[in-house]
Amino acid sequence: MSSSWGKNFRLTVFGESHSRGIGGVIDDLPAGIPVDMDAIGRMLARRATGMSAIATARREPDKPEILSGVFNGKTTGTPLAFVIYNGDQHSADYSNLAETARPGHADYSGFVRYGGYNDYRGGGHFSGRLTAPVVFAGGLAASWLEGRGVGVAARIKSICGIEDEDRALSTLGLDEMAALKAKPFPTLSDGRGRLMYDRAMAAKADLDSVGGVIECCIIGLPAGLGDPIFGAFESELSRLLFSVPAVKGVEFGAGFDITKMTGSEANDEFYMDGPLVRTRTNNNGGINGGITNGMPVTFRVAVKPTPSIARPQSTVNFKTDTDAELVVKGRHDACIVPRAVPVVESCAALCAMDFLLGGKKIND
Amino acid sequence: MSSSWGKNFRLTVFGESHSRGIGGVIDDLPAGIPVDMDAIGRMLARRATGMSAIATARREPDKPEILSGVFNGKTTGTPLAFVIYNGDQHSADYSNLAETARPGHADYSGFVRYGGYNDYRGGGHFSGRLTAPVVFAGGLAASWLEGRGVGVAARIKSICGIEDEDRALSTLGLDEMAALKAKPFPTLSDGRGRLMYDRAMAAKADLDSVGGVIECCIIGLPAGLGDPIFGAFESELSRLLFSVPAVKGVEFGAGFDITKMTGSEANDEFYMDGPLVRTRTNNNGGINGGITNGMPVTFRVAVKPTPSIARPQSTVNFKTDTDAELVVKGRHDACIVPRAVPVVESCAALCAMDFLLGGKKIND
Amino acid sequence: MSSSWGKNFRLTVFGESHSRGIGGVIDDLPAGIPVDMDAIGRMLARRATGMSAIATARREPDKPEILSGVFNGKTTGTPLAFVIYNGDQHSADYSNLAETARPGHADYSGFVRYGGYNDYRGGGHFSGRLTAPVVFAGGLAASWLEGRGVGVAARIKSICGIEDEDRALSTLGLDEMAALKAKPFPTLSDGRGRLMYDRAMAAKADLDSVGGVIECCIIGLPAGLGDPIFGAFESELSRLLFSVPAVKGVEFGAGFDITKMTGSEANDEFYMDGPLVRTRTNNNGGINGGITNGMPVTFRVAVKPTPSIARPQSTVNFKTDTDAELVVKGRHDACIVPRAVPVVESCAALCAMDFLLGGKKIND
Amino acid sequence: MSSSWGKNFRLTVFGESHSRGIGGVIDDLPAGIPVDMDAIGRMLARRATGMSAIATARREPDKPEILSGVFNGKTTGTPLAFVIYNGDQHSADYSNLAETARPGHADYSGFVRYGGYNDYRGGGHFSGRLTAPVVFAGGLAASWLEGRGVGVAARIKSICGIEDEDRALSTLGLDEMAALKAKPFPTLSDGRGRLMYDRAMAAKADLDSVGGVIECCIIGLPAGLGDPIFGAFESELSRLLFSVPAVKGVEFGAGFDITKMTGSEANDEFYMDGPLVRTRTNNNGGINGGITNGMPVTFRVAVKPTPSIARPQSTVNFKTDTDAELVVKGRHDACIVPRAVPVVESCAALCAMDFLLGGKKIND
Repeated sequence: MSSSWGKNFRLTVFGESHSRGIGGVIDDLPAGIPVDMDAIGRMLARRATGMSAIATARREPDKPEILSGVFNGKTTGTPLAFVIYNGDQHSADYSNLAETARPGHADYSGFVRYGGYNDYRGGGHFSGRLTAPVVFAGGLAASWLEGRGVGVAARIKSICGIEDEDRALSTLGLDEMAALKAKPFPTLSDGRGRLMYDRAMAAKADLDSVGGVIECCIIGLPAGLGDPIFGAFESELSRLLFSVPAVKGVEFGAGFDITKMTGSEANDEFYMDGPLVRTRTNNNGGINGGITNGMPVTFRVAVKPTPSIARPQSTVNFKTDTDAELVVKGRHDACIVPRAVPVVESCAALCAMDFLLGGKKIND
Repeated sequence: MSSSWGKNFRLTVFGESHSRGIGGVIDDLPAGIPVDMDAIGRMLARRATGMSAIATARREPDKPEILSGVFNGKTTGTPLAFVIYNGDQHSADYSNLAETARPGHADYSGFVRYGGYNDYRGGGHFSGRLTAPVVFAGGLAASWLEGRGVGVAARIKSICGIEDEDRALSTLGLDEMAALKAKPFPTLSDGRGRLMYDRAMAAKADLDSVGGVIECCIIGLPAGLGDPIFGAFESELSRLLFSVPAVKGVEFGAGFDITKMTGSEANDEFYMDGPLVRTRTNNNGGINGGITNGMPVTFRVAVKPTPSIARPQSTVNFKTDTDAELVVKGRHDACIVPRAVPVVESCAALCAMDFLLGGKKIND
Repeated sequence: MSSSWGKNFRLTVFGESHSRGIGGVIDDLPAGIPVDMDAIGRMLARRATGMSAIATARREPDKPEILSGVFNGKTTGTPLAFVIYNGDQHSADYSNLAETARPGHADYSGFVRYGGYNDYRGGGHFSGRLTAPVVFAGGLAASWLEGRGVGVAARIKSICGIEDEDRALSTLGLDEMAALKAKPFPTLSDGRGRLMYDRAMAAKADLDSVGGVIECCIIGLPAGLGDPIFGAFESELSRLLFSVPAVKGVEFGAGFDITKMTGSEANDEFYMDGPLVRTRTNNNGGINGGITNGMPVTFRVAVKPTPSIARPQSTVNFKTDTDAELVVKGRHDACIVPRAVPVVESCAALCAMDFLLGGKKIND
Repeated sequence: MSSSWGKNFRLTVFGESHSRGIGGVIDDLPAGIPVDMDAIGRMLARRATGMSAIATARREPDKPEILSGVFNGKTTGTPLAFVIYNGDQHSADYSNLAETARPGHADYSGFVRYGGYNDYRGGGHFSGRLTAPVVFAGGLAASWLEGRGVGVAARIKSICGIEDEDRALSTLGLDEMAALKAKPFPTLSDGRGRLMYDRAMAAKADLDSVGGVIECCIIGLPAGLGDPIFGAFESELSRLLFSVPAVKGVEFGAGFDITKMTGSEANDEFYMDGPLVRTRTNNNGGINGGITNGMPVTFRVAVKPTPSIARPQSTVNFKTDTDAELVVKGRHDACIVPRAVPVVESCAALCAMDFLLGGKKIND
C-alpha cells in the first residue's frame, strides 16, 4: 500500500498540507508501551523549527491529539490514531500550482498520477509537512528504543559541499548525542556548522537554496536483526528514507566510497572484545547480508536543495500544455536539511523498532 | 515478509546454495503474458557467466524448470513457480563456515539471526546464487516491458575508482542498449572497460578483489508511476536493490552530488517538446515526489568488493567465541560487478512492471 | 495486520468506545470518486438507530468529519481519513468491566490478549461502535457500486427462529430494495417483521435478548471476480463478516442446507439467457471456485443474541481469579440484528468494490 | 495476494492439476522447527485416499520433495519450498473443459477471470488437488502444535443429512482423537458412519454424489489469541476454510443455531475450575470478540456434494455462447467429505500456529 509502512507494526500516514489535519494510525503496536507526549513533542519541535533565520516563517505548533489507542498513558494494543490539525493556511498562495509545475516538485507528476483530483494546495499529500506524522511515530519509537539501550542520532554531515569534521558519529557517548540533538544546527563542529549556516544564508539572499548530507547512526542494536533478501535491514530502512521528500541517495557504512577499496580493505575483520564479537572497521555499516552484526548501524542520506526558490523559473502549464514562467510564492526554507535531521532519525528508530519487535524467530 | 516483494504481483524467492534447488513463485501475474524462456535464459546466462577469466570457475547452467503457471507459452494468471536445481556442489568446501565468520559475509549475523539452524553451506540463503530467481523474474518483466516500449539497460560505471566515459546512459538508442547488453564487460567505452578489467585481474593476482558502481536507466516509462510517501518509486526500487548482496549505496539522478548544487542548479526546469512535457536537465532521475515525470529514470548502485578473498584474514569462531584466522576456500569471483549488472536491470524491470500494472487508479 | 482489510484499497479502523474518537483511514482509493456524505450519513443513521423501542437509548449522532483525502467533493487518491468524535460517555457505567468478565463479551479474552492494558470502558476497541467506521467506508463503496449498476441489500431473515417470508432477496427490483432499506425493521413481510419485533420486545421485558439471521445479496456483479485459493470471494467476504461483533456463522448460496442435497440437485445448471450465461438455480450463491459467475451473490449471517442482558449472571473476576456475579449496567439493545443489517451490507459493498477495482488482470 | 495466506508466516501454494507439479513456499517460519516428513506423509495420505470404494481411482502417491529451507531435519528460517510432482495425467479426459462449463465447477468463472488463459485441464489451479500443499503445511503445523500440547481433530458430522452421534468432539481424549484420525471414515459412531457410507455408495450407483458437514475442534489453545476487528480468529480461519473447494458454510460454536437461543441461553458463563477460567457451555466456540478464551475452539464446515457427476447435465459452451449438454468424464469421488477432513484440520492447525507465533504482543 502506498502510505503505509511496517511489518511488526504498521504506520499509515494521512493528510494534505491544507486538509483538516494530518496524522497517522499505528496498528499492531504491543500493548503497554508508554507514550511520552513530551518526548514526542520535542522531536516534533525539532522538525517544525529548523534554522530559525532561514527556514520558512510558517510555523505551526504541530500539537498532536491522540484519537485512540492510548489509555492511562500507555498503548492499548489497538490502533493508535493521532491527528495534527492544520491551521495557518493561505490557500490562495498556492492557487497557481493547480496548473503550473514547480520544477523539482511533484506538481506535474502528481497531477498525472491522480488525474488532477489531488489536492494541490501547499503540495497536498506531497508536502514536507507529511513528515510530521512520521516524526510522531519516530518519537514514540525512539523513546521505546532508549528504554532498551538503543540510541539513534543524526548530524548534518555537509551543506552544499561544506563538510562537518571527520569523526564517526558512533564514537559519541550518550551525553554527546543528547547535546547534538539540542543544537538547532546539529553538527559536531560548531565552527563548521557556522560555515554551513552562512552558506545557506547566502543562498537565501541570492533567492536560491542549498541541500546537504545527513549522517545517522543507531547504537546498541543487537546482532541478528534483519530478514533475508527483500527484507534486508538496508532494504527496509532505505524504503523509509526514500519516502522523505528531497532524499535522492542512501548509503550504508562506507557507501559509494567502498567501491574504491579492495576486498582486503573493505572487509571488516572480526575480533573478540571480551565476550563481544566486534569488527575492527565498520565499512559495512553494521550490516552483513542484510542482518545486523552488532556494530553501530551507520548510513548517510543525500538531501537535495529545497526546490522552492524565489527566482523566476521556466516551466510548463500542464493543463494547457504550454511553456510558462513561474515565481514560487509563499514562505519556504532556503535549507531544509536541519528540519530533515529528526525525520531521518525517526526513520531509523521506526526501522529498528520494527525489527526488534519481530525478533529472531527461532523455535525453542 | 522476508523473501517476498511486490504489490501488483508478488515474487517470493527460495533456496539455499546447496539445497535441492533455488527458485521462486510469482503470484498474481496477469494471465496471458508470453513467457519467453529464451530471453529469460539469456538474462540468466549474463548473470551466471560474468567476466570469464576473473569470475569463479563454478558455472552451473542455471536451467530453470517451470513447475506451474504457464500454459501454451503464456501465464495462466495463477502462481508461476520455477526451480533451478542445484548441482556441482562441493559442500565440504564450506564446512568451516559453520563456525568461522568470513569477514564481510553473513556467516556470523546469519548464525545469530537463525540460532544456528541456517544452512551455512555456500552461504545458504545469503548466497549470491539467490539472485538467479530475481533475474528469472526480471527477465520475464523485461520482455513484458519491451512490448510496451520500455527499455532497461545498465553499465559498469566504475571499478575501484576507474570510471567509464562520462555519457548519460539515457542517450543510448535501443540498438546501442542491445549492444551494451551483449558485452561480457558492459561499459560504454571499451578502452575504459579494458582498464577496469585489468584492475580486477590485478586484484585477483594479489589474492584480493574489487567492487564498483553500476549505472542503470529505464527509458520509455510514462509519467505518473509511483505512490506517495512509503510507496515512492525510489522507495520500492531501493528496497529491491539493497536486497542484492554487496550493494551498499543507491542514488537517483544526480544523487549525492546534488547536495553540492544550489536549488537553481538542481531544479529540472520543464518545457514543452512538441506535445511532450520534458525537463532540460534530469538531476532528479526522472522522479519528482516519488512519482515518475516521464523522463528517464536513472540511478546508480554501489557494489562492494567481493568479500571472499584468498588471503588469510583475522576473524572469530562464533561457536567458541574465540579469535581465529581464516582462509576462504572455494572458487570465487575477484569482481562480482559484471554479474551484478543483469541483477540490477532485473530489479529495475520488476519495479517498473509492478508500477505499470498498478496503473494510476483514477476513477472514470 | 489486525485492524486493516483490503487488497486494492485498504481500510484501517481505529478507536475505542470511550476514546477521543473512532474512525478510519482508507488508503489507495482511486482518485476522483465522489464522496456523497449524505448517502454515507443515511447508512450511518441506519446503523445508529436500530429498532427505536428496543435498541439502547445511547444514540450518538455519528457525524463523521473528513480529515484528509477529499478535495472538491471527490477523493484525492491519497489516504482518506475520517473521525467520528465520541461524546455522551458514561465511563463510570463500565468501571466494573476492568476485572469482571461479561459472559459472551471480550472482557476476559481481551484482558489476556492485551495484558490488561486495553481500554475496557464500553468494550473499548471491541465495542459494536467500531462498526461505524466500517459503515462509513461501506457507504462510500455502496455509492460507488450503484454508479456501476451493482446493488447491495440485506434483510432480517429470522429473529429467534421466527422466519421472514420465503422469497429470494435477489428477485427484488431496485425500487423494492430501496424500500426495504427504508424500513426500520427490514423484512420482506411486514407481518413477519411484526412478529419478530414482538419477540424481541418480549425478550427485553424478560431482561433477555435475541439474535437472528441476516440475508444479503449483491446484484449486478459481473462474472470473473475473485482470486484463487485464499483469495476466494467467499474467503475475503467471510473474513469481513466474521469481524462484525456477534457473528458466529456465514454461509453462501444454499449454505449448510446444500449438504442435504445430492450433486444433481445442488449443481446449478448453466443456460443461455439471450447473450447472458445464467444458472437455473443458485445454490452456489453466485460463486464457483471462489469466483463470481454473474449470478447474484447471496449469503446469510448468524448474529447471536446481544450478550449484554440485564439479568444477574455468574462469571469470574479475572484479576482476583475468583467466581463472581455480574449485572451488566448501561443501556443495551435487546436485539442488535436491525443495526447489524447496514454493517453486513457494508461488508458486502467493500468486498465487491475491492474485487471490482482489482479487475481481472488479463494481459492485453 | 491470491494464493498466499498468513501473517506470522506466509504460505503460498502453486500448481495446476496437470502442470509439472504442485507445491508451496512457506516463508518466515521460525528456524529450528523439526520437519517430520512421516507425520506430514500420513496427513497427505489421508487426503489422498478418501473412501477406498467410492473415491476416484486416481491415486497419486503425493510424495513431496523439499527444495529448500530444511537442513539437518529442521527449518532453516528461510523459505521452505516443496513440490509434489504430477504424474498419472490423462489430459485428454479434460479437453472438453476448455469450452464447456461443468455445473458447480469453476470452468466458466475461471475462463472469464483469466480471459481463457488458465490451464483448464483437470480443473487447473481450481483442482481439489491444490489442497495437498495446504495439507503439507498443515501437517507441519499440526506436529508443531502437538509439541505445545495443542491438538486438532475433525470428524464427519453428517453426510446428506445423516448425522453422527451427538457428542462434542472436544470431550475426546488424545487417544480417542488419534483413533478417530486413523479411521478411513472418521465418525464417532461406526454404525452411523456405515449409514453415511452406504448413502454415498447409493449416490454413486445412481451416478450422483453427496456432501456433508465436517466438525473440527482445537484443544489446548491458550486464551488471548486473535486480533481485533478484521484479524479475528474466526476471520482468519474462515478465510482459510472458504479457500477449500466445495465449502459453502462455516460456523463457530453453536453457529446458526445460536440465533434461536436467547442471550441468557447463549451466553457462556465463566467459572473458576481451580486456577483455570472456564465456561460452563461453549456456544461461542472458544472465541469471544475474535479472541480465544481458553475453551476448545469448535467449528463446522458445510461441504457441498461433489459437482462432478456422471449424469448428463445441461450447460453452456462459453466459447460459442450456446446451450450444450455435458457428461463429465474421468474418475471422480462420489463423496469428497472424507478427503476434506484432513484439509479442514490443516486449516485449523495453520491458523492456530500463526496466532501462536504472533503471540500477545505485550510490552514488558
